[in-house]
Amino acid sequence: MLKTSCINPEIMSTLACCGHGDKILIADGNYPIESNTNTNTKKAYINLSHGIPTVTQVLNVLSNTITIEKAEVMATDDGQEPLIFQEFKKILGTEATLYDLNRFKFYEECKKENVKLAIATGEQRVYANILLTVGVVN
Amino acid sequence: MLKTSCINPEIMSTLACCGHGDKILIADGNYPIESNTNTNTKKAYINLSHGIPTVTQVLNVLSNTITIEKAEVMATDDGQEPLIFQEFKKILGTEATLYDLNRFKFYEECKKENVKLAIATGEQRVYANILLTVGVVN
Amino acid sequence: MLKTSCINPEIMSTLACCGHGDKILIADGNYPIESNTNTNTKKAYINLSHGIPTVTQVLNVLSNTITIEKAEVMATDDGQEPLIFQEFKKILGTEATLYDLNRFKFYEECKKENVKLAIATGEQRVYANILLTVGVVN
Amino acid sequence: MLKTSCINPEIMSTLACCGHGDKILIADGNYPIESNTNTNTKKAYINLSHGIPTVTQVLNVLSNTITIEKAEVMATDDGQEPLIFQEFKKILGTEATLYDLNRFKFYEECKKENVKLAIATGEQRVYANILLTVGVVN
Amino acid sequence: MLKTSCINPEIMSTLACCGHGDKILIADGNYPIESNTNTNTKKAYINLSHGIPTVTQVLNVLSNTITIEKAEVMATDDGQEPLIFQEFKKILGTEATLYDLNRFKFYEECKKENVKLAIATGEQRVYANILLTVGVVN
Amino acid sequence: MLKTSCINPEIMSTLACCGHGDKILIADGNYPIESNTNTNTKKAYINLSHGIPTVTQVLNVLSNTITIEKAEVMATDDGQEPLIFQEFKKILGTEATLYDLNRFKFYEECKKENVKLAIATGEQRVYANILLTVGVVN
Amino acid sequence: MLKTSCINPEIMSTLACCGHGDKILIADGNYPIESNTNTNTKKAYINLSHGIPTVTQVLNVLSNTITIEKAEVMATDDGQEPLIFQEFKKILGTEATLYDLNRFKFYEECKKENVKLAIATGEQRVYANILLTVGVVN
Amino acid sequence: MLKTSCINPEIMSTLACCGHGDKILIADGNYPIESNTNTNTKKAYINLSHGIPTVTQVLNVLSNTITIEKAEVMATDDGQEPLIFQEFKKILGTEATLYDLNRFKFYEECKKENVKLAIATGEQRVYANILLTVGVVN
Amino acid sequence: MLKTSCINPEIMSTLACCGHGDKILIADGNYPIESNTNTNTKKAYINLSHGIPTVTQVLNVLSNTITIEKAEVMATDDGQEPLIFQEFKKILGTEATLYDLNRFKFYEECKKENVKLAIATGEQRVYANILLTVGVVN
Amino acid sequence: MLKTSCINPEIMSTLACCGHGDKILIADGNYPIESNTNTNTKKAYINLSHGIPTVTQVLNVLSNTITIEKAEVMATDDGQEPLIFQEFKKILGTEATLYDLNRFKFYEECKKENVKLAIATGEQRVYANILLTVGVVN
Repeated sequence: MLKTSCINPEIMSTLACCGHGDKILIADGNYPIESNTNTNTKKAYINLSHGIPTVTQVLNVLSNTITIEKAEVMATDDGQEPLIFQEFKKILGTEATLYDLNRFKFYEECKKENVKLAIATGEQRVYANILLTVGVVN
Repeated sequence: MLKTSCINPEIMSTLACCGHGDKILIADGNYPIESNTNTNTKKAYINLSHGIPTVTQVLNVLSNTITIEKAEVMATDDGQEPLIFQEFKKILGTEATLYDLNRFKFYEECKKENVKLAIATGEQRVYANILLTVGVVN
Repeated sequence: MLKTSCINPEIMSTLACCGHGDKILIADGNYPIESNTNTNTKKAYINLSHGIPTVTQVLNVLSNTITIEKAEVMATDDGQEPLIFQEFKKILGTEATLYDLNRFKFYEECKKENVKLAIATGEQRVYANILLTVGVVN
Repeated sequence: MLKTSCINPEIMSTLACCGHGDKILIADGNYPIESNTNTNTKKAYINLSHGIPTVTQVLNVLSNTITIEKAEVMATDDGQEPLIFQEFKKILGTEATLYDLNRFKFYEECKKENVKLAIATGEQRVYANILLTVGVVN
Repeated sequence: MLKTSCINPEIMSTLACCGHGDKILIADGNYPIESNTNTNTKKAYINLSHGIPTVTQVLNVLSNTITIEKAEVMATDDGQEPLIFQEFKKILGTEATLYDLNRFKFYEECKKENVKLAIATGEQRVYANILLTVGVVN
Repeated sequence: MLKTSCINPEIMSTLACCGHGDKILIADGNYPIESNTNTNTKKAYINLSHGIPTVTQVLNVLSNTITIEKAEVMATDDGQEPLIFQEFKKILGTEATLYDLNRFKFYEECKKENVKLAIATGEQRVYANILLTVGVVN
Repeated sequence: MLKTSCINPEIMSTLACCGHGDKILIADGNYPIESNTNTNTKKAYINLSHGIPTVTQVLNVLSNTITIEKAEVMATDDGQEPLIFQEFKKILGTEATLYDLNRFKFYEECKKENVKLAIATGEQRVYANILLTVGVVN
Repeated sequence: MLKTSCINPEIMSTLACCGHGDKILIADGNYPIESNTNTNTKKAYINLSHGIPTVTQVLNVLSNTITIEKAEVMATDDGQEPLIFQEFKKILGTEATLYDLNRFKFYEECKKENVKLAIATGEQRVYANILLTVGVVN
Repeated sequence: MLKTSCINPEIMSTLACCGHGDKILIADGNYPIESNTNTNTKKAYINLSHGIPTVTQVLNVLSNTITIEKAEVMATDDGQEPLIFQEFKKILGTEATLYDLNRFKFYEECKKENVKLAIATGEQRVYANILLTVGVVN
Repeated sequence: MLKTSCINPEIMSTLACCGHGDKILIADGNYPIESNTNTNTKKAYINLSHGIPTVTQVLNVLSNTITIEKAEVMATDDGQEPLIFQEFKKILGTEATLYDLNRFKFYEECKKENVKLAIATGEQRVYANILLTVGVVN
């Protein structure tokens, strides 16, 4: 077992291939991960069951592994902020601002070729997908 | 997302290839999964971080998906039963008895060619590996 | 053998990769499955012989495995509803409405990139192809 | 759709690679097909659900496609002939005699390198596995 | 050896993947089969030597295996019908009409994505290529 | 189309990889080519239908392409020489002597690792398999 | 070793897949063979060292193996004919005329999809690339 | 170990496939190497840790292995020349001039199909990426 | 670029697949890495040139990434301890003891199936190979 | 084109994977390279035609690329030294002694797992095979 925070072989190798400006999607259980990411995006299926693991568990681990420069989420139709966004902000800290995109803009971003990794979770909460932008390590 | 208890594509397809008498290993975070299972055993890395997911989370899901006829665990050197065995028994119910093997006998069983799947977890407890035998569905 | 309704390894793993809005085609025996689906659509050849299995057998199993949000079929030229549509409606229940598309619109839908799985059957009845849309599991 | 009795691409191509003395296993739903056939045996998963298709459906199709010289089945422990053996005999006709082997001899035969194809079914009856030997076409 | 007319594994498996409207090219020895068919067309090289086998030998076998709905050939520049067209018509019988296309239209048809199989022969006669359209089996 | 006698891409490339002492099997339609040659032997399926092509057609082409130092055939049980052996001798000329081996010795030779190529034909005559030994080109 | 003029397995198998109108590039040592041919062009690296082998050695061998209908070379900027063109003409004989294209037209031709094979040599002379068009064998 | 300056197998084989005008990128640790080079560019990950190896170490080795005709770097926004450019010039000597491109022009050049190799380093200095053009060896 | 000490994708993914008791070889530039490790050992060629990188650079990075339980080195014939062993001890600290094996015992250990990773360096010092045993992370 | 003596991509990458004690076979045109080397030996087919290239051309290039510690050749039956051995000695210089093995011992050595590369030539002289042992680079 690695001493680092993330211990998954596939996630570690794909993150190691990312550079400044590349993006990582952490997807909830109902996200159409094969259709709504790029064909070349690496898919990591670490989902086990409904609710296992959650998107916030994954975000926590990634924030220890790479520099996160920016994070994008799906805006709700009624403009209300979902509860999970507070958790996102707490984990990201001051390092990265959270931008909300409307649903179709979010999908469009997820299908671009700089999305290098999509991690499938069992997350059951709604509006729980988050798209991270890799920053610089000095 | 599948309506079934297990939602992982790789685990579902490998379990679907198993028959009566085949075996499944749920491994803790320090288990040498590539060395101490058969070369042809399918490895599913759903491990994320230290403690995520646990072996008992996986066992719970598998017990909803296949019939478990028998379960084998590693005996401690001092003959004391680890706490996690109680959890194992509770999940398995009356369906399957728990057999404890000494360490080397356990490894030997895990390397046999009828071990079809090994699932890597982030489990941090000791003596937490469990080897399941698939039963019959009538 | 899995305890779940569907026991086919390839179908289970592909369904597990689907999310909200992805589509599944159950094709009759004469459907040109390689030409009239997307290049990246996974093809599952479970067809054995003329009439084995039928499209309705497959639909029945899938309706136990995923949430079906919508179903599309080919409209006949004379506007008469084929007998098999009654069977489709009975299996789908109130969960999903059946939409009929003209032949070329149906082909067009089947070739889109969100069609993730095409299952080849031995179905001999006419107008027997059905295109399912995956719904959400809460 | 082929005009021939068998319409499955994988089964047809593997049968076409077989010659005199090669063997084909039609396996029931609980048979450990990956463990108890040869590593190089081609596996065809045409199983859909519990009971679909049956072993006898497959046998019927194969008997139209290849010459069957011999057929082997598992003997019961009590020496009673299972009902399904009558169906086997009816389909095979006078072309091939049915030999019964004890369980471990049957497994042993199934693991030999001349077993070229193993077909996974959803058959739920017991003692339903059958191992065919390909004959000569003049 | 299969009891069916066609005994080639690759040709049988590709034909089994074809449906209504898919096309099959039987090419003479000088046809640029890699350049003038679709990239995804399966190529079956059963050619041995100059004149072995002929296109008509292959056509005879295919007509026993699939329903042929239509056949297309290359028209000569001078409008004279090559002798081999008579052989084609005899084999096809009343099942399928022979359409002649000019050379470039023929190439264009051969490069479409519904051409699933191209069979390389050693045919030495000129104007000997034939493009078959798969029909329906009821 | 090549100007050389043999025009098949797979056969030409495999023959080009052979050296002094390597062997080539030309198999009749009922020979179990996958079971009774070496696992690493390249298989070339140029068989089309019953009787197409014959073993002698292939032998004729190979004798123009490589030097044949020796040829082995299966002896009949009654010691009678099959008619096809006369054809073999005529094609081989004085270049190579024909040795007959009993059936099991023949199989044994065919399974050795120096058998580099096995060509599947549709030959229907009996005792028609022939195993060639590649000679030296000066 | 083959008795034919060309003994290279990869070159022989690719030439055997060519038909009328396909093209073959013989490239000198500095030609950017991966960039300036088609992505699907087969590359044969038979280059050993500076000057080994030469383009003319390869041309000589190919002219014994296929019919060459046409040959294209790069014209010099000053209109002077390079010495190597005389060697090309001598090898090609009356069978094929030599056409000279300007540099960019030559590259454009080399990148077309009918260029099936590019052979890398160690040729050190300038203007030494030659693009052959395969003719018909009757 | 090779006697040549560069001893890496992957780098050596890719450089050997390059010709006149092909390009090689040596990337610093934060460069998005998968996104901002061509899909077909070969990636060589010889990076070990922060600062190991440096871009200048790699440049030094490459300048001993291929002829470098031209080198391109990213210009700073303020027009100031980064210190590392002096090192680049010293290694390249008089053989190749250094051209600076603005950031987006540099990315554009790196994504062209003639970029055959991208080498990932652990370089931590900024403006440290360099794109080399392969020259001619006489 | 990862924030972790090791940034190489291949090394990170292979280390993540290791468990308690698995072994990692860091090899010097002359070590026959393909012959004297296990066939299934993953090879990571991060070697660039003579002396780049060194074995100690790699050891330093690995000691930050995994728990090292034991380390084995080659003993000299004359029993003198090479200078590099002092560096090894300094990096390993009190975590792991250094065992020296004679040359053939060392090779034998390196060829065992629990050696999961071999890293090729450009190290030029003698007796510089080191074989690490992965420990437990609690 | 590389500035190094050897310019072949496959040979360079395989040599770069070799270490002290690994072996390289340069084979004449009639050597059975697939049968009489190890299954895992990399085969490089740079042979073009009878006599092109020669074994001595290849030896010359390799002696510039790696350190040759030892060379083995086949002894003649009559004890007479073939002329080509003088050429071998001249190229190898004082660096490596030539050992002659009897034919079967030579084959045996060539089939060992430390033979990493076998290069196919068109050499027509007899007793022309040579097996090199890689030495150390300091």
